[in-house]
Amino acid sequence: MSRLCVHTITTKPLSLEQCLSEFPKRGVGGITIWRQALEGRDLVAVKRQVADTGMDLVSLCRGGFFPATTVAARQSAIDDNLKAIEQAHAIGAPLIVLVCGAVPGQSLAESRKQITEGIAAVLPAAEAAGVKLSIEPLHTMYADDRSAVNTMRQAHEICDALGSPKSLGIAVDVYHVWWDPELKAQIDLAGQTGRLHAFHICDWKTPTTDLLNDRGLMGEGCINIREISDWVDATGFTGFREVEIFSHKWWAEDQGIFLNQIASSYTHLYQS
Amino acid sequence: MSRLCVHTITTKPLSLEQCLSEFPKRGVGGITIWRQALEGRDLVAVKRQVADTGMDLVSLCRGGFFPATTVAARQSAIDDNLKAIEQAHAIGAPLIVLVCGAVPGQSLAESRKQITEGIAAVLPAAEAAGVKLSIEPLHTMYADDRSAVNTMRQAHEICDALGSPKSLGIAVDVYHVWWDPELKAQIDLAGQTGRLHAFHICDWKTPTTDLLNDRGLMGEGCINIREISDWVDATGFTGFREVEIFSHKWWAEDQGIFLNQIASSYTHLYQS
Repeated sequence: MSRLCVHTITTKPLSLEQCLSEFPKRGVGGITIWRQALEGRDLVAVKRQVADTGMDLVSLCRGGFFPATTVAARQSAIDDNLKAIEQAHAIGAPLIVLVCGAVPGQSLAESRKQITEGIAAVLPAAEAAGVKLSIEPLHTMYADDRSAVNTMRQAHEICDALGSPKSLGIAVDVYHVWWDPELKAQIDLAGQTGRLHAFHICDWKTPTTDLLNDRGLMGEGCINIREISDWVDATGFTGFREVEIFSHKWWAEDQGIFLNQIASSYTHLYQS
Repeated sequence: MSRLCVHTITTKPLSLEQCLSEFPKRGVGGITIWRQALEGRDLVAVKRQVADTGMDLVSLCRGGFFPATTVAARQSAIDDNLKAIEQAHAIGAPLIVLVCGAVPGQSLAESRKQITEGIAAVLPAAEAAGVKLSIEPLHTMYADDRSAVNTMRQAHEICDALGSPKSLGIAVDVYHVWWDPELKAQIDLAGQTGRLHAFHICDWKTPTTDLLNDRGLMGEGCINIREISDWVDATGFTGFREVEIFSHKWWAEDQGIFLNQIASSYTHLYQS
Protein backbone atom coordinates (compact mmCIF):
# COMPACT_ATOMS: atom_id res chain seq x y z
CA MET A 1 0.00 0.00 0.00
CA SER A 2 1.28 3.45 -0.94
CA ARG A 3 2.44 5.71 1.88
CA LEU A 4 0.86 8.61 0.02
CA CYS A 5 -1.90 10.28 2.01
CA VAL A 6 -3.89 13.32 0.88
CA HIS A 7 -5.70 15.81 3.11
CA THR A 8 -9.26 16.68 2.16
CA ILE A 9 -8.31 20.38 2.40
CA THR A 10 -5.76 19.80 -0.38
CA THR A 11 -8.64 19.23 -2.79
CA LYS A 12 -10.89 21.71 -1.04
CA PRO A 13 -13.39 22.04 -3.94
CA LEU A 14 -14.21 18.31 -3.66
CA SER A 15 -16.79 16.96 -1.23
CA LEU A 16 -15.74 14.22 1.18
CA GLU A 17 -17.57 11.73 -1.04
CA GLN A 18 -15.64 12.91 -4.09
CA CYS A 19 -12.35 12.63 -2.16
CA LEU A 20 -13.23 9.07 -1.17
CA SER A 21 -13.94 8.26 -4.78
CA GLU A 22 -11.07 10.10 -6.47
CA PHE A 23 -8.13 9.55 -4.11
CA PRO A 24 -7.91 5.73 -4.48
CA LYS A 25 -7.92 6.01 -8.28
CA ARG A 26 -4.47 7.64 -7.99
CA GLY A 27 -3.08 5.01 -5.65
CA VAL A 28 -3.53 7.20 -2.58
CA GLY A 29 -3.25 4.92 0.45
CA GLY A 30 -4.42 7.23 3.20
CA ILE A 31 -6.74 10.13 3.84
CA THR A 32 -6.70 12.84 6.47
CA ILE A 33 -10.11 14.37 6.96
CA TRP A 34 -10.61 18.00 7.85
CA ARG A 35 -13.51 18.65 10.17
CA GLN A 36 -15.36 20.92 7.76
CA ALA A 37 -15.59 17.94 5.38
CA LEU A 38 -17.64 16.17 8.05
CA GLU A 39 -20.34 18.82 8.25
CA GLY A 40 -23.79 17.35 7.77
CA ARG A 41 -22.46 13.78 7.62
CA ASP A 42 -23.32 10.80 9.75
CA LEU A 43 -20.02 9.92 11.38
CA VAL A 44 -20.67 6.19 11.60
CA ALA A 45 -21.45 6.19 7.89
CA VAL A 46 -18.23 8.09 7.17
CA LYS A 47 -16.24 5.49 9.06
CA ARG A 48 -17.78 2.74 6.92
CA GLN A 49 -17.36 4.72 3.68
CA VAL A 50 -13.67 5.28 4.35
CA ALA A 51 -13.16 1.61 5.18
CA ASP A 52 -14.88 0.65 1.94
CA THR A 53 -12.29 2.62 -0.08
CA GLY A 54 -9.43 0.55 1.32
CA MET A 55 -7.63 3.73 2.36
CA ASP A 56 -6.35 4.20 5.89
CA LEU A 57 -7.88 7.07 7.84
CA VAL A 58 -4.70 8.79 8.98
CA SER A 59 -5.89 11.70 11.07
CA LEU A 60 -8.52 14.29 11.78
CA CYS A 61 -7.58 17.96 11.22
CA ARG A 62 -7.72 19.90 13.35
CA GLY A 63 -7.92 20.59 17.04
CA GLY A 64 -6.07 23.22 19.00
CA PHE A 65 -6.52 27.01 19.11
CA PHE A 66 -6.34 26.89 22.89
CA PRO A 67 -5.14 30.42 23.77
CA ALA A 68 -7.68 33.14 24.38
CA THR A 69 -7.91 36.21 26.54
CA THR A 70 -10.82 35.02 28.67
CA VAL A 71 -11.45 31.93 30.76
CA ALA A 72 -14.75 31.42 28.94
CA ALA A 73 -13.11 31.46 25.53
CA ARG A 74 -10.40 29.05 26.68
CA GLN A 75 -13.11 26.70 28.01
CA SER A 76 -14.90 27.00 24.70
CA ALA A 77 -11.70 25.89 22.95
CA ILE A 78 -11.39 22.94 25.30
CA ASP A 79 -15.01 22.00 24.61
CA ASP A 80 -14.35 22.15 20.88
CA ASN A 81 -11.34 19.88 21.26
CA LEU A 82 -13.41 17.42 23.26
CA LYS A 83 -15.87 17.44 20.39
CA ALA A 84 -13.03 16.80 17.94
CA ILE A 85 -11.96 13.81 20.03
CA GLU A 86 -15.50 12.44 19.86
CA GLN A 87 -15.53 12.96 16.10
CA ALA A 88 -12.17 11.27 15.65
CA HIS A 89 -13.33 8.32 17.72
CA ALA A 90 -16.57 8.08 15.77
CA ILE A 91 -14.94 8.01 12.35
CA GLY A 92 -12.02 5.88 13.48
CA ALA A 93 -9.26 8.47 13.13
CA PRO A 94 -6.36 7.44 15.37
CA LEU A 95 -4.93 10.93 15.66
CA ILE A 96 -5.91 14.61 15.83
CA VAL A 97 -3.54 17.27 14.54
CA LEU A 98 -3.35 20.31 16.82
CA VAL A 99 -2.85 23.78 15.38
CA CYS A 100 -2.22 25.19 18.79
CA GLY A 101 -3.32 28.81 18.45
CA ALA A 102 -2.09 32.27 19.39
CA VAL A 103 -3.64 35.60 20.26
CA PRO A 104 -2.24 38.76 18.66
CA GLY A 105 -0.74 40.92 21.38
CA GLN A 106 -0.69 38.19 24.01
CA SER A 107 2.85 37.06 24.72
CA LEU A 108 3.88 33.88 22.98
CA ALA A 109 5.07 32.49 26.31
CA GLU A 110 1.61 33.05 27.83
CA SER A 111 -0.03 31.44 24.79
CA ARG A 112 2.24 28.42 25.10
CA LYS A 113 1.27 28.15 28.78
CA GLN A 114 -2.40 28.20 27.79
CA ILE A 115 -1.74 25.63 25.06
CA THR A 116 -0.10 23.34 27.58
CA GLU A 117 -3.04 23.75 29.95
CA GLY A 118 -5.51 23.16 27.14
CA ILE A 119 -3.84 19.96 26.05
CA ALA A 120 -3.71 18.79 29.66
CA ALA A 121 -7.44 19.39 29.93
CA VAL A 122 -8.34 17.22 26.94
CA LEU A 123 -5.69 14.50 27.16
CA PRO A 124 -7.70 12.20 29.45
CA ALA A 125 -10.60 12.21 27.00
CA ALA A 126 -8.22 11.52 24.11
CA GLU A 127 -6.66 8.63 25.97
CA ALA A 128 -10.04 7.20 26.88
CA ALA A 129 -11.06 7.41 23.23
CA GLY A 130 -7.82 5.88 22.00
CA VAL A 131 -7.05 9.01 20.00
CA LYS A 132 -3.56 10.52 19.86
CA LEU A 133 -2.98 14.26 19.89
CA SER A 134 -0.21 15.67 17.72
CA ILE A 135 1.21 19.14 18.12
CA GLU A 136 2.02 20.63 14.74
CA PRO A 137 4.64 23.36 15.01
CA LEU A 138 3.60 26.13 12.61
CA HIS A 139 5.83 28.46 10.60
CA THR A 140 6.92 31.56 12.52
CA MET A 141 4.88 33.72 10.12
CA TYR A 142 1.80 32.29 11.87
CA ALA A 143 2.98 33.23 15.36
CA ASP A 144 0.58 36.17 15.50
CA ASP A 145 -2.73 34.34 15.45
CA ARG A 146 -2.34 30.68 14.46
CA SER A 147 0.29 29.12 16.67
CA ALA A 148 2.71 30.12 19.39
CA VAL A 149 4.40 26.76 18.81
CA ASN A 150 6.78 27.44 15.93
CA THR A 151 9.55 24.89 16.36
CA MET A 152 9.81 21.21 17.13
CA ARG A 153 11.83 22.18 20.20
CA GLN A 154 8.81 24.03 21.58
CA ALA A 155 6.55 21.07 20.80
CA HIS A 156 8.94 18.79 22.66
CA GLU A 157 8.94 21.20 25.60
CA ILE A 158 5.16 20.94 25.86
CA CYS A 159 5.34 17.13 25.75
CA ASP A 160 8.01 17.26 28.45
CA ALA A 161 5.97 19.65 30.61
CA LEU A 162 3.04 17.25 30.51
CA GLY A 163 5.17 14.29 31.59
CA SER A 164 5.60 12.75 28.13
CA PRO A 165 2.20 11.09 27.84
CA LYS A 166 2.22 8.37 25.21
CA SER A 167 -0.80 9.80 23.46
CA LEU A 168 0.84 13.19 22.86
CA GLY A 169 3.28 13.69 20.02
CA ILE A 170 4.31 15.89 17.11
CA ALA A 171 3.19 16.31 13.51
CA VAL A 172 6.09 17.43 11.34
CA ASP A 173 5.15 19.55 8.31
CA VAL A 174 8.11 20.43 6.10
CA TYR A 175 6.49 23.74 5.13
CA HIS A 176 6.59 24.96 8.70
CA VAL A 177 9.96 23.74 9.90
CA TRP A 178 12.24 23.34 6.88
CA TRP A 179 14.25 26.46 7.84
CA ASP A 180 15.05 25.23 11.37
CA PRO A 181 18.77 24.54 11.83
CA GLU A 182 17.83 22.10 14.60
CA LEU A 183 15.41 20.17 12.43
CA LYS A 184 17.32 16.91 12.03
CA ALA A 185 18.22 16.77 15.71
CA GLN A 186 14.64 17.45 16.75
CA ILE A 187 13.30 14.82 14.36
CA ASP A 188 15.80 12.34 15.80
CA LEU A 189 14.61 13.24 19.29
CA ALA A 190 10.99 12.80 18.24
CA GLY A 191 11.86 9.33 16.99
CA GLN A 192 13.69 8.41 20.18
CA THR A 193 10.83 9.62 22.37
CA GLY A 194 8.07 7.99 20.33
CA ARG A 195 6.60 11.38 19.52
CA LEU A 196 6.89 11.33 15.74
CA HIS A 197 3.21 10.92 14.92
CA ALA A 198 2.76 12.38 11.46
CA PHE A 199 4.63 13.76 8.48
CA HIS A 200 3.17 16.39 6.14
CA ILE A 201 4.65 17.48 2.83
CA CYS A 202 4.25 20.31 0.33
CA ASP A 203 6.68 22.93 -0.96
CA TRP A 204 7.74 26.56 -0.45
CA LYS A 205 7.41 28.59 -3.63
CA THR A 206 9.62 31.50 -4.63
CA PRO A 207 7.97 33.93 -4.69
CA THR A 208 5.19 33.04 -2.27
CA THR A 209 2.32 35.42 -2.92
CA ASP A 210 0.03 34.62 -0.01
CA LEU A 211 0.97 33.79 3.57
CA LEU A 212 -1.60 31.03 3.85
CA ASN A 213 -2.82 29.82 0.47
CA ASP A 214 0.14 29.74 -1.90
CA ARG A 215 1.77 26.49 -0.90
CA GLY A 216 3.41 24.47 -3.60
CA LEU A 217 3.14 20.96 -4.88
CA MET A 218 6.25 18.94 -4.10
CA GLY A 219 8.89 20.07 -6.59
CA GLU A 220 7.45 23.53 -7.11
CA GLY A 221 9.63 25.02 -4.41
CA CYS A 222 12.88 24.99 -2.49
CA ILE A 223 12.28 22.65 0.44
CA ASN A 224 14.63 19.67 0.78
CA ILE A 225 11.58 17.42 1.19
CA ARG A 226 13.27 14.15 0.33
CA GLU A 227 16.16 14.81 2.71
CA ILE A 228 13.79 15.65 5.57
CA SER A 229 11.67 12.62 4.70
CA ASP A 230 14.75 10.43 4.89
CA TRP A 231 15.54 11.86 8.34
CA VAL A 232 11.98 10.98 9.40
CA ASP A 233 12.21 7.44 8.03
CA ALA A 234 15.62 6.97 9.66
CA THR A 235 13.91 7.18 13.06
CA GLY A 236 11.89 4.12 12.16
CA PHE A 237 8.82 6.03 11.03
CA THR A 238 6.78 3.99 8.57
CA GLY A 239 3.67 6.14 8.50
CA PHE A 240 2.11 8.11 5.70
CA ARG A 241 3.54 11.07 3.82
CA GLU A 242 0.57 13.40 3.94
CA VAL A 243 0.12 15.93 1.17
CA GLU A 244 -1.36 19.04 2.74
CA ILE A 245 -1.49 21.95 0.30
CA PHE A 246 -3.43 25.19 0.69
CA SER A 247 -3.37 26.85 -2.70
CA HIS A 248 -5.71 29.27 -4.41
CA LYS A 249 -3.90 28.37 -7.62
CA TRP A 250 -4.41 24.61 -7.33
CA TRP A 251 -7.94 24.93 -5.96
CA ALA A 252 -8.83 26.85 -9.14
CA GLU A 253 -7.68 23.91 -11.29
CA ASP A 254 -9.54 20.75 -12.16
CA GLN A 255 -9.08 18.67 -9.01
CA GLY A 256 -8.73 15.43 -10.93
CA ILE A 257 -5.78 16.88 -12.82
CA PHE A 258 -4.39 18.22 -9.54
CA LEU A 259 -4.64 14.76 -7.97
CA ASN A 260 -2.80 13.31 -10.96
CA GLN A 261 -0.07 15.92 -10.41
CA ILE A 262 0.11 15.05 -6.71
CA ALA A 263 0.53 11.38 -7.54
CA SER A 264 3.24 12.04 -10.14
CA SER A 265 5.09 14.52 -7.93
CA TYR A 266 4.99 12.02 -5.10
CA THR A 267 6.29 9.23 -7.33
CA HIS A 268 9.05 11.46 -8.65
CA LEU A 269 10.05 12.44 -5.12
CA TYR A 270 10.25 8.90 -3.77
CA GLN A 271 11.16 6.83 -6.83
CA SER A 272 14.90 6.81 -6.17
CA MET B 1 18.45 64.66 20.14
CA SER B 2 15.71 62.15 19.46
CA ARG B 3 16.72 58.52 19.07
CA LEU B 4 14.16 58.24 16.29
CA CYS B 5 15.73 57.32 12.95
CA VAL B 6 13.84 56.76 9.71
CA HIS B 7 14.97 54.69 6.73
CA THR B 8 14.66 56.30 3.31
CA ILE B 9 12.86 53.15 2.13
CA THR B 10 10.15 53.81 4.72
CA THR B 11 9.12 56.87 2.73
CA LYS B 12 9.97 55.28 -0.60
CA PRO B 13 8.00 57.78 -2.73
CA LEU B 14 10.21 60.62 -1.43
CA SER B 15 13.54 61.50 -3.01
CA LEU B 16 16.61 61.62 -0.79
CA GLU B 17 16.39 65.41 -0.87
CA GLN B 18 12.78 65.30 0.29
CA CYS B 19 13.70 62.90 3.10
CA LEU B 20 16.46 65.26 4.23
CA SER B 21 13.97 68.10 4.25
CA GLU B 22 10.96 66.35 5.76
CA PHE B 23 12.48 64.08 8.41
CA PRO B 24 13.91 66.82 10.67
CA LYS B 25 10.58 68.67 10.72
CA ARG B 26 9.18 65.73 12.72
CA GLY B 27 12.06 65.64 15.19
CA VAL B 28 13.73 62.70 13.48
CA GLY B 29 17.29 62.53 14.78
CA GLY B 30 18.81 60.00 12.42
CA ILE B 31 18.56 58.75 8.88
CA THR B 32 19.48 55.43 7.31
CA ILE B 33 20.01 55.74 3.59
CA TRP B 34 19.15 52.95 1.18
CA ARG B 35 21.54 52.65 -1.73
CA GLN B 36 18.89 53.23 -4.39
CA ALA B 37 18.34 56.68 -2.86
CA LEU B 38 21.96 57.49 -3.77
CA GLU B 39 21.53 56.82 -7.47
CA GLY B 40 22.70 59.73 -9.58
CA ARG B 41 23.92 61.66 -6.54
CA ASP B 42 27.37 63.03 -5.77
CA LEU B 43 28.32 61.19 -2.59
CA VAL B 44 30.45 63.98 -1.16
CA ALA B 45 27.55 66.35 -1.63
CA VAL B 46 25.21 63.88 0.09
CA LYS B 47 27.53 63.73 3.08
CA ARG B 48 27.42 67.51 3.38
CA GLN B 49 23.65 67.68 2.83
CA VAL B 50 23.01 65.16 5.61
CA ALA B 51 25.33 67.03 7.96
CA ASP B 52 23.48 70.26 7.20
CA THR B 53 20.21 68.73 8.43
CA GLY B 54 21.66 68.07 11.86
CA MET B 55 20.57 64.43 11.62
CA ASP B 56 23.00 61.60 12.26
CA LEU B 57 23.68 59.29 9.35
CA VAL B 58 23.01 55.97 11.04
CA SER B 59 23.69 53.38 8.37
CA LEU B 60 23.70 52.45 4.72
CA CYS B 61 21.27 49.74 3.57
CA ARG B 62 22.15 47.31 2.30
CA GLY B 63 25.01 44.97 1.56
CA GLY B 64 24.97 41.20 1.60
CA PHE B 65 23.35 38.72 -0.80
CA PHE B 66 26.56 36.68 -0.79
CA PRO B 67 25.30 33.18 -1.70
CA ALA B 68 25.17 32.16 -5.34
CA THR B 69 25.56 28.96 -7.30
CA THR B 70 28.66 30.04 -9.23
CA VAL B 71 32.05 31.38 -8.22
CA ALA B 72 31.59 34.28 -10.61
CA ALA B 73 28.28 35.29 -9.06
CA ARG B 74 29.72 35.07 -5.56
CA GLN B 75 32.63 37.28 -6.65
CA SER B 76 30.15 39.71 -8.15
CA ALA B 77 28.41 39.89 -4.77
CA ILE B 78 31.73 40.54 -3.05
CA ASP B 79 32.48 43.31 -5.54
CA ASP B 80 29.11 44.88 -4.88
CA ASN B 81 29.75 44.82 -1.14
CA LEU B 82 33.14 46.45 -1.66
CA LYS B 83 31.32 49.16 -3.61
CA ALA B 84 28.85 49.57 -0.74
CA ILE B 85 31.76 50.02 1.66
CA GLU B 86 33.15 52.76 -0.59
CA GLN B 87 29.74 54.42 -0.69
CA ALA B 88 29.33 54.23 3.08
CA HIS B 89 32.76 55.74 3.57
CA ALA B 90 32.05 58.49 1.06
CA ILE B 91 28.78 59.59 2.65
CA GLY B 92 30.02 59.10 6.20
CA ALA B 93 27.82 56.15 7.16
CA PRO B 94 29.45 54.26 10.05
CA LEU B 95 27.67 51.01 9.34
CA ILE B 96 26.32 48.82 6.55
CA VAL B 97 23.38 46.51 7.18
CA LEU B 98 23.81 43.09 5.58
CA VAL B 99 20.83 41.21 4.22
CA CYS B 100 22.87 38.10 3.81
CA GLY B 101 21.14 36.29 0.95
CA ALA B 102 19.98 32.77 0.09
CA VAL B 103 19.50 30.74 -3.06
CA PRO B 104 16.29 28.72 -3.49
CA GLY B 105 17.18 25.04 -3.52
CA GLN B 106 20.68 25.50 -2.15
CA SER B 107 20.93 24.23 1.41
CA LEU B 108 20.73 26.89 4.08
CA ALA B 109 23.89 25.51 5.66
CA GLU B 110 25.77 25.96 2.35
CA SER B 111 24.38 29.48 2.00
CA ARG B 112 25.52 30.34 5.51
CA LYS B 113 28.98 29.03 4.64
CA GLN B 114 29.06 31.27 1.57
CA ILE B 115 27.81 34.20 3.65
CA THR B 116 30.62 33.66 6.14
CA GLU B 117 33.17 33.52 3.31
CA GLY B 118 31.70 36.61 1.69
CA ILE B 119 31.87 38.63 4.88
CA ALA B 120 35.44 37.45 5.43
CA ALA B 121 36.33 38.66 1.94
CA VAL B 122 35.07 42.20 2.52
CA LEU B 123 35.87 42.71 6.20
CA PRO B 124 39.40 44.05 5.61
CA ALA B 125 38.07 46.75 3.30
CA ALA B 126 35.35 47.63 5.81
CA GLU B 127 37.89 47.91 8.61
CA ALA B 128 40.20 50.03 6.47
CA ALA B 129 37.28 52.35 5.69
CA GLY B 130 36.17 52.51 9.31
CA VAL B 131 32.80 51.02 8.38
CA LYS B 132 31.10 48.39 10.50
CA LEU B 133 29.18 45.48 8.99
CA SER B 134 25.98 44.34 10.68
CA ILE B 135 24.32 41.03 9.99
CA GLU B 136 20.55 41.42 10.05
CA PRO B 137 18.81 38.12 10.77
CA LEU B 138 15.74 37.99 8.54
CA HIS B 139 12.38 36.37 9.26
CA THR B 140 12.24 32.67 8.43
CA MET B 141 9.72 33.42 5.68
CA TYR B 142 12.65 34.93 3.75
CA ALA B 143 14.84 31.85 4.05
CA ASP B 144 14.15 30.87 0.45
CA ASP B 145 15.81 33.75 -1.36
CA ARG B 146 16.64 36.63 0.98
CA SER B 147 18.58 35.30 3.93
CA ALA B 148 19.79 32.00 5.28
CA VAL B 149 20.46 33.84 8.55
CA ASN B 150 17.12 33.78 10.33
CA THR B 151 17.99 34.00 14.00
CA MET B 152 20.33 36.02 16.18
CA ARG B 153 21.95 32.75 17.20
CA GLN B 154 22.99 32.16 13.59
CA ALA B 155 24.32 35.71 13.31
CA HIS B 156 26.37 35.16 16.45
CA GLU B 157 27.70 31.91 15.00
CA ILE B 158 29.00 33.75 11.94
CA CYS B 159 30.66 36.38 14.15
CA ASP B 160 32.21 33.55 16.18
CA ALA B 161 33.40 31.71 13.07
CA LEU B 162 35.21 34.84 11.89
CA GLY B 163 36.99 35.32 15.21
CA SER B 164 34.68 38.01 16.60
CA PRO B 165 36.09 40.96 14.63
CA LYS B 166 35.16 44.26 16.24
CA SER B 167 33.77 45.65 13.03
CA LEU B 168 31.24 42.82 12.63
CA GLY B 169 27.99 42.82 14.56
CA ILE B 170 24.25 42.37 14.40
CA ALA B 171 21.28 44.53 13.42
CA VAL B 172 18.18 43.54 15.36
CA ASP B 173 14.87 44.13 13.60
CA VAL B 174 11.83 43.29 15.72
CA TYR B 175 9.85 42.28 12.62
CA HIS B 176 12.26 39.47 11.87
CA VAL B 177 13.00 38.08 15.30
CA TRP B 178 10.06 38.87 17.59
CA TRP B 179 8.89 35.25 17.56
CA ASP B 180 12.24 33.82 18.71
CA PRO B 181 12.02 32.28 22.19
CA GLU B 182 15.75 32.94 22.57
CA LEU B 183 15.46 36.61 21.68
CA LYS B 184 16.19 38.17 25.06
CA ALA B 185 19.14 35.86 25.71
CA GLN B 186 20.59 36.54 22.26
CA ILE B 187 20.18 40.30 22.67
CA ASP B 188 21.92 40.05 26.03
CA LEU B 189 24.74 38.13 24.37
CA ALA B 190 24.98 40.74 21.62
CA GLY B 191 25.37 43.40 24.28
CA GLN B 192 28.02 41.46 26.15
CA THR B 193 30.01 40.80 22.98
CA GLY B 194 29.75 44.35 21.63
CA ARG B 195 27.83 43.12 18.63
CA LEU B 196 24.60 45.03 19.10
CA HIS B 197 25.02 47.52 16.27
CA ALA B 198 21.54 48.59 15.28
CA PHE B 199 17.89 48.32 16.25
CA HIS B 200 15.03 48.43 13.74
CA ILE B 201 11.34 48.74 14.56
CA CYS B 202 7.99 48.31 12.83
CA ASP B 203 5.05 46.01 13.55
CA TRP B 204 3.49 42.71 12.46
CA LYS B 205 -0.07 43.16 11.27
CA THR B 206 -2.88 40.61 11.61
CA PRO B 207 -3.64 39.74 8.92
CA THR B 208 -0.48 40.39 6.93
CA THR B 209 -1.45 40.43 3.26
CA ASP B 210 1.98 40.52 1.61
CA LEU B 211 5.13 38.74 2.66
CA LEU B 212 7.34 41.75 1.97
CA ASN B 213 5.37 44.97 1.76
CA ASP B 214 2.67 44.88 4.43
CA ARG B 215 4.65 45.83 7.50
CA GLY B 216 2.93 47.92 10.10
CA LEU B 217 3.57 51.18 11.85
CA MET B 218 4.42 50.67 15.50
CA GLY B 219 1.11 49.97 17.24
CA GLU B 220 -0.60 48.52 14.18
CA GLY B 221 0.42 44.99 15.09
CA CYS B 222 1.22 42.45 17.75
CA ILE B 223 4.97 42.79 18.33
CA ASN B 224 6.08 43.56 21.89
CA ILE B 225 8.25 46.37 20.53
CA ARG B 226 8.66 48.29 23.75
CA GLU B 227 9.65 45.20 25.70
CA ILE B 228 12.24 44.19 23.11
CA SER B 229 13.47 47.78 22.99
CA ASP B 230 13.92 47.74 26.76
CA TRP B 231 15.94 44.51 26.47
CA VAL B 232 18.13 46.26 23.89
CA ASP B 233 18.62 49.34 26.05
CA ALA B 234 19.37 47.18 29.10
CA THR B 235 22.55 46.01 27.36
CA GLY B 236 23.78 49.61 27.34
CA PHE B 237 22.66 50.32 23.80
CA THR B 238 22.06 54.05 23.30
CA GLY B 239 21.76 54.08 19.52
CA PHE B 240 18.85 54.95 17.32
CA ARG B 241 15.51 53.21 17.03
CA GLU B 242 15.25 52.93 13.27
CA VAL B 243 11.83 52.87 11.68
CA GLU B 244 12.03 50.56 8.67
CA ILE B 245 8.63 49.91 7.12
CA PHE B 246 7.90 48.37 3.73
CA SER B 247 4.24 49.00 3.07
CA HIS B 248 2.24 49.35 -0.12
CA LYS B 249 -0.49 50.82 2.07
CA TRP B 250 1.66 53.53 3.63
CA TRP B 251 3.55 54.27 0.40
CA ALA B 252 0.18 55.05 -1.20
CA GLU B 253 -0.52 57.69 1.45
CA ASP B 254 0.72 61.26 1.63
CA GLN B 255 4.25 60.79 2.98
CA GLY B 256 4.09 63.91 5.12
CA ILE B 257 1.05 62.50 6.92
CA PHE B 258 2.83 59.15 7.20
CA LEU B 259 5.85 60.84 8.78
CA ASN B 260 3.56 62.58 11.26
CA GLN B 261 2.11 59.18 12.12
CA ILE B 262 5.60 57.71 12.55
CA ALA B 263 6.53 60.50 14.92
CA SER B 264 3.36 60.17 16.98
CA SER B 265 3.56 56.36 17.08
CA TYR B 266 7.17 56.64 18.21
CA THR B 267 6.29 59.15 20.90
CA HIS B 268 3.42 56.98 22.10
CA LEU B 269 5.70 53.94 22.23
CA TYR B 270 8.45 55.58 24.24
CA GLN B 271 6.64 58.21 26.28
CA SER B 272 6.20 56.06 29.37
